[in-house]
Formats: sequence, C-alpha cells, structure tokens
Amino acid sequence: MADKRKRRRPADDSDSDSELPFKSKLKSDSAILQTLKTLKDSAASSSETKPLTLSDLNLSTACREVTDRSLSSVQSSIESLILSFAHSILAGNGFSFSVPSRSAANQLYVPELDRIVLKDKSAVRPFANVSTVRKTTVTTRILQLIHQLCLKSIHVTKRDLFYTDVKLFQDQTQSDAVLDDVSCILGCTRSSLNVVAAEKGVVVGRLIFSDNGDMIDCTKMGMGGKAIPPNIDRVGDMQSDALFILLVEKDAAYMRLAEDRFYNRFPCIIVTAKGQPDVATRLFLKKMKTELKLPVLALVDSDPYGLKILSVYGCGSKNMSYDSANLTTPDIKWLGIRPSDLDKYKIPEQCRLPMTEQDIKTGKDLLEEDFVKKNSGWVEELSLMVKSKQKAEIQALSTFGFQYLTEVYLPLKLQQKDWL
Amino acid sequence: MADKRKRRRPADDSDSDSELPFKSKLKSDSAILQTLKTLKDSAASSSETKPLTLSDLNLSTACREVTDRSLSSVQSSIESLILSFAHSILAGNGFSFSVPSRSAANQLYVPELDRIVLKDKSAVRPFANVSTVRKTTVTTRILQLIHQLCLKSIHVTKRDLFYTDVKLFQDQTQSDAVLDDVSCILGCTRSSLNVVAAEKGVVVGRLIFSDNGDMIDCTKMGMGGKAIPPNIDRVGDMQSDALFILLVEKDAAYMRLAEDRFYNRFPCIIVTAKGQPDVATRLFLKKMKTELKLPVLALVDSDPYGLKILSVYGCGSKNMSYDSANLTTPDIKWLGIRPSDLDKYKIPEQCRLPMTEQDIKTGKDLLEEDFVKKNSGWVEELSLMVKSKQKAEIQALSTFGFQYLTEVYLPLKLQQKDWL
Repeated sequence: MADKRKRRRPADDSDSDSELPFKSKLKSDSAILQTLKTLKDSAASSSETKPLTLSDLNLSTACREVTDRSLSSVQSSIESLILSFAHSILAGNGFSFSVPSRSAANQLYVPELDRIVLKDKSAVRPFANVSTVRKTTVTTRILQLIHQLCLKSIHVTKRDLFYTDVKLFQDQTQSDAVLDDVSCILGCTRSSLNVVAAEKGVVVGRLIFSDNGDMIDCTKMGMGGKAIPPNIDRVGDMQSDALFILLVEKDAAYMRLAEDRFYNRFPCIIVTAKGQPDVATRLFLKKMKTELKLPVLALVDSDPYGLKILSVYGCGSKNMSYDSANLTTPDIKWLGIRPSDLDKYKIPEQCRLPMTEQDIKTGKDLLEEDFVKKNSGWVEELSLMVKSKQKAEIQALSTFGFQYLTEVYLPLKLQQKDWL
Repeated sequence: MADKRKRRRPADDSDSDSELPFKSKLKSDSAILQTLKTLKDSAASSSETKPLTLSDLNLSTACREVTDRSLSSVQSSIESLILSFAHSILAGNGFSFSVPSRSAANQLYVPELDRIVLKDKSAVRPFANVSTVRKTTVTTRILQLIHQLCLKSIHVTKRDLFYTDVKLFQDQTQSDAVLDDVSCILGCTRSSLNVVAAEKGVVVGRLIFSDNGDMIDCTKMGMGGKAIPPNIDRVGDMQSDALFILLVEKDAAYMRLAEDRFYNRFPCIIVTAKGQPDVATRLFLKKMKTELKLPVLALVDSDPYGLKILSVYGCGSKNMSYDSANLTTPDIKWLGIRPSDLDKYKIPEQCRLPMTEQDIKTGKDLLEEDFVKKNSGWVEELSLMVKSKQKAEIQALSTFGFQYLTEVYLPLKLQQKDWL
C-alpha cells in the first residue's frame, strides 16, 4: 500500500524508488547469490591450505606466541613453575621470573602472517632485588589467583582480579599489566587464564552455536540478537549455511540489518562489537572464520577510525601482540563505506563531515602502517580520504531513505564484488 | 577436590570457607526461598490494586503524559494534524504547532506517583514568524519522516533520522529535540514513533518472551544472555516462574551471576544495562514488572552514581519526564551494595575508595531530591555515605573470593530481607 501511494505522487517523497540512486543497476537476488557462492568457495579453498604459522617462516628474528590451553594444563604449568621456585629457594638461589618484554621495541609486523607478533626479548624479574621485589610479589599473587580459578573452573573479569588484593595491587593498571605478563610467562592466552573482558558484541543471522551448553539459533533471536559470550572457551558446535560474515562497526547499521532480516535475503551472519572491537568479539569472529571457513566483509564508517577498527580485527592491537594468532582474523575485505563511495553513491555534501586535524593525522599515520601498505586498494582509498578531507558515517546512506543500506547499497556492493 | 585441599591447609588460602565472613549465618536455600515467595506475593498483591494514574490524583496543577499508541493511530494523528493545517492555510490563517514545554520549570515530581511528570504549559510555534519558521519547518519534516516509518512499519535510530535531512537539521541535537517535541505534540511515546535507541542491556534467567516473533528462553542463553531488543513494541508473551527481578548496575557482576546460574538456585530474572540505563532496558524492566508482577531488587555500586542509576529506573530522567509513566518502574528495592554494608560486611579499607569532591556534591544534591527524601532508609544510607566520604564498587566483594557475591552476600541479603 505504501508503494502504491508513492507511485501516485512521486514528487513529494524523497524516498520514492525512482529517485534511489543505482537501484536500477541491481540484478536479481539469485544472480547476486551466485556471486556470493563463488566468494565463499574461494574463501573455503584458501583456508584448506594450512594457514602459515610463525614456525613455518624461518624468520631471522625469533618470535614468541601464546596458545590456547586447557585449564588443567595451565594449572599444572603453574604448579611446576612454583615447584621449581621451591627447589631454587631450597638450593639457596632465591627465585626469579623470566618475563617476555611486551614493549614496542620487541614487536614485529610479519607481512607473511599479516599480523603483529612479539619478538623473544625477556627480562629477569628477581625477588631478591629492591627494584623488582614488588612486581615479583604481584606476579606470584596473580599466579596464585589464576590457580584458584583453575581449581574452581570459573571466569572472572580483570576488575574482579584487582579487587581480590587491592592492598598489594594498589591500582588496576598494575594487576592488568602483570596479568599480560603471566599470559606470556605461561605461554597461553588470557582466555586460557579464565580472565575475560566484559561482553559488548552481538550476533544475529544464519548461525547456530552452543553457549555454555545451551544451543543458540541466531536466526531466532528477534531484532535484539544474541549477546556474544565473554568466555570463548564455552562456545562451540558452530553450524551455518551462510555465504559470508558481515562485520558491522556500528549498532545502528546492525539494527537496520537485523530488523530487515538481511540474512534471509542473502544468507549471512551479522556481527558487531558496537564500536571499538573487544576481545570477546574478536575471538568470536576468529572462531567463526576458522570453523565455518566463511569470507568476512566489513561495513565501517568512512573515516580513519573505521579503518583502524578493521585493522584491529585483522592484524591485532599492539597491546596484545603476544596473542595475535588467536585474536586476529586474516583476510577481512573492506566492503564499505569507502572514501570512493562518497562520490560514487552521490552522498550529498551536507551528509559528509569535514575531517578534523586529528583525523587527518590518524589517516596519515595509517598510511605508514605495514598492514595498510600491503593492500594497494586500501592505500588508494585512504589517500583519497586524506586528500578530500571528508569523512562519512554508515548512517549517511539514510539520506536516500532508511532502508537504502539494505535494499540498494549492500546488494549492489555484493553484486559488483565491490570489496578490497 | 579443591575443597579438600583447602581444608587440609586452611591458613594459606584467603578464599577458604572458614574465613568467609557471615557464611555461617546462611540458612538453607529453602528457608530463603520461603522469604522470597512472601516478597513476591506482596508485590503481586500490591500490583492488583490498580496503579494510580495522573487522572486519579486531582492535582491542582494540570499535567500531561504521553501513552503508547499503535502505528496506525500515530499515522492517522499525523494525517489529521496536517489536514487541519491545510484547512487553516486555505482559510488564510497560515499554520502553527502547539508544543508542550519540556523545560525544568514545567516539570513536577508527584510523590503519589513517585515520578517526575510534565505540567501543561505549551508554546505556540507559528510558521509565519521569523523566529520560529525554521523550527516549524523542522517539526513538519520530522512529522513527515515519522509518517514514512508508519507506512513502512520499520524502526530507525535518532541518528538515521538526522541523516535523512542533514541540510535542514544541521546537527543532531536539533532533530533529537524536535523529535521529543513531536512525541509531546502527538501525545505518544517515542517508541510509538518507531524511533529507537541503540540496545545496550542484556537479560538472563527465568524468563521466556517473544522478540519480533521468535520465542526466547532466557535460561538457555548460556553466559552471554539475550540482548534486550531496541524496539519494545515487538516484545511480548512474557512468562516466568521467577520470584524476583535482580537489576544489576554493572556487567562484571552480571557475568558472575550468569556464569554461576544464580537464577537456578534462587529463581529470578537478571538484567543489566551495563551502566547508565538506556531507554530500551528501562522499557523492558517496566514491561517485566507490569506483566509478571515481580518485585525488583537492585544491586548497584555504593556511590552517588549507583543511587542515581536506581533513581532513573525508578522515577525517570528529567529529560524524558513527559514519558515517565512508560519508562519508570515504581517500587524498586535497594538491595546493595549499601553504604552500611561496607562496615557490616567488613569490606577492607583498601577496597573502599575515597569520594571525590564531585561525588560528595552529587551525594548532597541527591539528598535534596524528593524521590530520595520519601524513603527514610535511603536518606539514612546516603547520609552515611556523604559523612564517611567512602564509596565501593560491587566488585569490592571479590576481596573475599570471586564467588562471595553469589554464594554469601546475595543469599544472606535475601534471607535477611535486607532491602530498602
């Protein structure tokens, strides 16, 4: 009925079909689905070849990585470590930790792996030294607390950990930093230590998985979707008939896609961390990509921050480079909104925003980053952004109607394989 | 096994049962459940008596409120309004809106209702006036956009609305403000306009409800829980065998409760907005309380901000006082962490934080608020907080062990009916 009205008086409705740019270019959904099937098959076959690991590379610099480990193996590592300390103390030698350095100087971007890893520099942290006695004590205490978590098989947050001994830790930055040290010392991921971050992400679409033993069907999660669990080790049994994963930066775009049930028209899994990616969402994305072998397409704002978010999913953050193997999802395609889309899709001037000085600086810094430089398409887009000094949010597409995103922009992008 | 070890060497484990303060006071779960059943029955019977509405009160000041309305009724209201404008224009009188004032001077706390409402002052917004022509145009445009949403039966965010006509709206504060005006003009809630806020809250526990047609069982949502849908009008069919609703301020405490499946030991529904309450979570809580007739117990930080959050759930925010009837949940009990708990539960000094000057000022301001003053227990607690100049987070309980919250603190609180 709504459509009929519009056709009778096309001039007074800015949302009318005849005015929607590029709608006429859209082919049938089955043609677009064929494109997506090809994309999926190529993603699946490329993941058949065993992914490169650090040890395959024979790098001149030795690097270190942590792995996911079971609770019982973490527990026995802690027990062996403490036992060795006891022997050392009884032999009159005191004890000290060997702590991998997590400083910038000890980080390395490995192009073959397309992520940041940690080199092998370590520091000795002896107990019997005025300058390190406190930090050694904190490290020992954190180890003790992690050991308790292993025994009880429960998860806690970094904040919980801090409050367990405020007197010793003094402030949370200290216990947080030592927690990362402990990950490196034990060679396991922070998730393996059962210390989790607050959950933030949501997922909806063609995915079934188990969360703590409950089977979740993400096509039956209404508009709200399923909150991504904070503890990835209790997530399993992933099944899907999706052709791709759509990674969305923002909540508002996610909502549009969920309400329109975009995943029923083009079978996909839609996921968002609502802004800056959190550890739980990164682990969840990685697990989906690995288990389901699906291509990942990203929909982010056309600004340096959007690209930065994409890079955190793709290559990891410097802060947690020791765990980049588990946290990063390689080969994410930049679907949109890309700087070149602004003119291509005729986004009106008033819906574009001028970049601030800080934006431009961030953009220029990103152009120097290895993970951008290795993709010439990205360099071109980012250069265009910095040159035009214009940015735009995903929401800018609403200027052509609230459903332009789901009805024209995304289908056309998919049809034209317009990702980089 | 863990327990056995502890018993053999009780001295070296700060988490051992013998040291857990007040654990010995705990009665059996069935005794506590009996207490909760009494609480639930009294909540149910008090909601049998029809809740007071503005019209019952015969206030000397006339007040106005908005109601939830169907899309088709919103649509026909808009059409009648525009039709009346057309008549007025044809009669040579131009047109103008009558816009209810939302300023502080037009707000009133009604103790009988225990919430803030809007008085009946209105302003005329004529088109043919230099000072109001722009705002009248914006108002008309927003009405047109809402009309489109009615025709299409879709939901959008305030951000989407803004981007539909950036040139006219200039910045989002303008379209947001006029959107609230439009709610007041049409006498309906913002949800009825199909403009929703981003979702933030999660729910887990003994609740089954439908989200956009999908049935959701919140006992089968693992640890992550179910994201609360942004559009309350697509939520329905609530069923529950819970005895109470546990409203939690923070994510970390929510996670502890979800992982320990606290709702299976004490049947309840656990809900959090992860900080400042958003509209979607407030509407969801209100709907649960109304449909399920359950008591609501709140677990917030012991600081002025925690009490403020409680007040937003309970009495509404000043900004949206025109919609307080739909957004507020009356009779929320303050379970903890209360300022008196700090000494009662022997929270160590180092886990308490000194209040800042701003905290103390906020605390003193709250003491002047009507909604605090009407509850003498709250006044006492808040006075104690301001006097002691100490605050504490829920997480501070972790000092007695990670599960102290779920295993001792909350059960004991429930057993002792220790809420205000």
